[in-house]
Amino acid sequence: MAGTRGTYRKTAQRREQILEAAFAIFAKNGYTASSVNEIARAVGITQTGVLHHFAGGKLALLTAVLQQRDALAEENLRGKTGREFLAALVEISRVQAGQRGVVQLYRNLSTEAVDPEHPAHNYFRERLGRIIEAVTQAFSEVLAEDGLKPGIEPRAAALNTLAMTEGLETLWLQGLDVDMAEGIRWHINGFLAKPL
Amino acid sequence: MAGTRGTYRKTAQRREQILEAAFAIFAKNGYTASSVNEIARAVGITQTGVLHHFAGGKLALLTAVLQQRDALAEENLRGKTGREFLAALVEISRVQAGQRGVVQLYRNLSTEAVDPEHPAHNYFRERLGRIIEAVTQAFSEVLAEDGLKPGIEPRAAALNTLAMTEGLETLWLQGLDVDMAEGIRWHINGFLAKPL
Repeated sequence: MAGTRGTYRKTAQRREQILEAAFAIFAKNGYTASSVNEIARAVGITQTGVLHHFAGGKLALLTAVLQQRDALAEENLRGKTGREFLAALVEISRVQAGQRGVVQLYRNLSTEAVDPEHPAHNYFRERLGRIIEAVTQAFSEVLAEDGLKPGIEPRAAALNTLAMTEGLETLWLQGLDVDMAEGIRWHINGFLAKPL
Repeated sequence: MAGTRGTYRKTAQRREQILEAAFAIFAKNGYTASSVNEIARAVGITQTGVLHHFAGGKLALLTAVLQQRDALAEENLRGKTGREFLAALVEISRVQAGQRGVVQLYRNLSTEAVDPEHPAHNYFRERLGRIIEAVTQAFSEVLAEDGLKPGIEPRAAALNTLAMTEGLETLWLQGLDVDMAEGIRWHINGFLAKPL
C-alpha cells in the first residue's frame, strides 16, 4: 500500500517535471521548433519515458501545459460577476507582469496557431471565444445595474478591453516600460460610470 | 550598352523574385524555421544563386524584406504632421486589412525577435522606438494647436494608440471580425477636441 502510494507520488512528480520542462522549451522555441526528445533530455529521461506519461506526444504535452495555466487563471475569476470580475482582470494582468515566460509562451503559441493547420488553432480560437463571452457578460451585468456610461454597449466594450489588453502586452513584451494592469484599469474606467 | 541594361534589368527582376519568395516563406514559417535553400527552390534557382544576390544570406534577405515594406509605409506618412499624420495612421490600417500576409509576417517575426539573441531584435526595437517618437510628435503638434482634450499628454496618447493598434491587429489575426481602421479612428478621437 505504502509502495503504491510512493509510486503514485513519484508518477505525479515526474509528470510535473515533464510539464515544467515542456513549458520552458515551448516558451523558448515555440511549438513547431520544439521536440519531445529535447523535453526528455531536459528532464534527464528518455523520449520513451516522456511518452509513458504523455502517450499523445508533443501535442498532448502542449495541451496539458496550456490547460494547467488556464485553470489557474480561471480559478481567479470563478464566482465573480460585474465590476468584481472586471477588477479581477486587472489583477490577472498585475500577476502576469511577474511572469514574462508564461506571457511569452502564450504569445508565441497563439501567433503560430493563427495558421488553421496548427494543432493548437482550435484551442486558441475557442479560448478567445470563451474570454469574449465572459467579459461581455461582466459588462452586461454592470449595465444591468446602470453602471456603464451612457451609450456603452457591453460586447463592444469587451472587445475593446481585450484589444487593449493584448496591445499593452505586445508593447510590454517588446521591452517598453508599460504598466499593463494600470493601463487596463484606466481603459475599463473609460466605460464605467464609477471608476474601479 | 543595350546588353548591359538588359543584364541590369534581369538582375533587378531576379532580386525582386527572391524577395517575394523570401517574404512568402518567412510569413508562412517564421524566420527561424525558414532556410535560404527553401527560398532558392521557390524561385527555381540554386542556393548559390540566391547568395549571389544576397551575400549576407538569410539575415540579409530578412533585412531587405522588412526595409522594403517599411519604406512603403513611410512613404504614406512623409511630410504629414499633426491631425493629417494621425489620419494617415488610420489609412495605413485600412490598407493592412487587405494584406493579411504582411501583417502576419511582421507579427511572426516581431514575436520571435522578442528574444534579445534574435538577429532582428534590434531592428524591431529601433523600429518601435521610431514609431513611438513619430506618433508622439504628431500628438504634440495637435496639442500645440489646442487640438487635444484637456489633460491629454502626447506620449501617453501615442503609447495608448499604438497599444490599441497592436491589440486590434491581434484580434483580427485570430479571426475576429474587427474593423481595425475604424477601431483606431474611434480610439484616436477619444484624445482629440474635434474628431477625425
